[in-house]
Amino acid sequence: MSSITWNDICAARERIAGYAHRTPTLSSTAINGMAGATVVFKCENFQKTGSFKFRGAFNTVASLTPEERAHGVYAHSSGNHAQALALAAQLHGIPAYIVMPEDSNPAKVSATEGYGARVISCPPTHRGRHETAARIGEETGAAFVHPHNEPRVIAGQGTAVCELIEDAGNFDVILTPVGGGGLLSGTSIATATLLPNTRVIGCEPAGADDAFRSIRDGRLVTDFTPETIADGLRTPLGDNTFAILREHVDRIVLVSEQEIVHAMRTVWERMKIVIEPSSAVAVAPLLRGEFAERGLRIGVVLSGGNADLEGFFSALSPQAAA
Amino acid sequence: MSSITWNDICAARERIAGYAHRTPTLSSTAINGMAGATVVFKCENFQKTGSFKFRGAFNTVASLTPEERAHGVYAHSSGNHAQALALAAQLHGIPAYIVMPEDSNPAKVSATEGYGARVISCPPTHRGRHETAARIGEETGAAFVHPHNEPRVIAGQGTAVCELIEDAGNFDVILTPVGGGGLLSGTSIATATLLPNTRVIGCEPAGADDAFRSIRDGRLVTDFTPETIADGLRTPLGDNTFAILREHVDRIVLVSEQEIVHAMRTVWERMKIVIEPSSAVAVAPLLRGEFAERGLRIGVVLSGGNADLEGFFSALSPQAAA
Repeated sequence: MSSITWNDICAARERIAGYAHRTPTLSSTAINGMAGATVVFKCENFQKTGSFKFRGAFNTVASLTPEERAHGVYAHSSGNHAQALALAAQLHGIPAYIVMPEDSNPAKVSATEGYGARVISCPPTHRGRHETAARIGEETGAAFVHPHNEPRVIAGQGTAVCELIEDAGNFDVILTPVGGGGLLSGTSIATATLLPNTRVIGCEPAGADDAFRSIRDGRLVTDFTPETIADGLRTPLGDNTFAILREHVDRIVLVSEQEIVHAMRTVWERMKIVIEPSSAVAVAPLLRGEFAERGLRIGVVLSGGNADLEGFFSALSPQAAA
Repeated sequence: MSSITWNDICAARERIAGYAHRTPTLSSTAINGMAGATVVFKCENFQKTGSFKFRGAFNTVASLTPEERAHGVYAHSSGNHAQALALAAQLHGIPAYIVMPEDSNPAKVSATEGYGARVISCPPTHRGRHETAARIGEETGAAFVHPHNEPRVIAGQGTAVCELIEDAGNFDVILTPVGGGGLLSGTSIATATLLPNTRVIGCEPAGADDAFRSIRDGRLVTDFTPETIADGLRTPLGDNTFAILREHVDRIVLVSEQEIVHAMRTVWERMKIVIEPSSAVAVAPLLRGEFAERGLRIGVVLSGGNADLEGFFSALSPQAAA
């Protein structure tokens, strides 16, 4: 594996400066009360393309050599990495080819196309994705940008927690969701340097508990069928992220689907911000009192805000048309 | 009528300082593109109790004499003023009695009770509200706080635009929604002093166009049946707000129900913040190009974020339980 260091994260910060938003931190007295602790949220739902993924994608594209960039970049992604890589490529003036499963959220597909990418549809299976992506790579000669196992992606994702710590100070615990593990890996490497006594904990849907089982059993679980509303967390870890999590992460906590929906609703209602289900996964443990300890300071990376609003607004339309 | 001056707004600012949030301003490149202008949003959806109403309610309660306060305060309100007055009373340690129509949003009723108010249900008619409120006033001896015609409420609502102008500078146009006219009145008085050349424009649902007709015909329209999703804008102007609007407001623009829903969705999707339908009324004219003029600077007060999320989340729950 490629080892990723604090220096890689510092270099990523310089590359993304002026391109990625420095997103705000928010707090909520109501949620502090429910959590029984002091919680600071890093709002990557306000990041460009609506999620933290822009950090890693931009850092990777910015790190490519002119020769590597010449034929553009490609990736497979169910959503947020797709949009992020599309915009990163557009800002560098190079083509992006994005392989997306047929059952992807239509809003995410059209957003990806809106950033100038060419979207290639594929069967909604692990194998379908990989075969289609391989073909696109051969046809175009583009550079592959893995959504979470790519070291430059991981370094980019590590920049969010640096800003959180700069803006809000010390933490006892830092929580992020874990899907492919890019955000959690980058966060854990940065925190190990900035706040070596802080526990970094990954939050995962019980219906896609591959990271939990991988860490518990000491071997990478990739063969599973995710069943979760948190569409950003259905992918397995990669070998790089698995190795980093084993070294730097305190533990993985699991949450139920009901807890995810409850957490999402609580954030929408109390904080008046839109987060997607994957983000709510890192809020859910707080609401069941998992970290209810007076004086405990907890940082949470709200990973994205690309929730599918179609159902809600199509239900409103007949009323609006009345 | 009581005349309200710039000095009243300055006094309100001092009273609410440290109690009301100084809410942030936000911008969106995507929405600027759609509007064809530069738009700055004042985010009162992040205000305490989820709307600008806290400003006026707090200013009023803080202005009462000890004798007036002794028996508490009361009001009738379908929602946001209810919560705002309840919290303002709670912070002053006095009782609040809130008359709410039977068909009020249940989330707003329970939020009002959550701030320690006693909620009294009434028939969902103009007459039902007023009769019930009159009875409560007699029984309790509490001080009545009108949701928009009360001069101290109007002065309080005028504080939001002061912060917007301090934070974001000059504007060519300032937009707010108009229901009872408290926010628009306070905004227009403050703007007349701070930016005398700026046009202040009210935005109103076509299905509740009483302010539009009142201004056009030069007489206060109070007899109408509102039909709009914008539940905060179903009330008529009062005599105070009508007089202020005639003097200070440039014009009222009307928007359709479809435009309101489209604007609400656009803000949720692009800005990742939750606004309620009444707020979207002030965004809708921008999205149809009403102010599409290169270089025009437009300030918009997003009045609140207390959207009814029940339908959305109850639709999600079966999926989450699967």
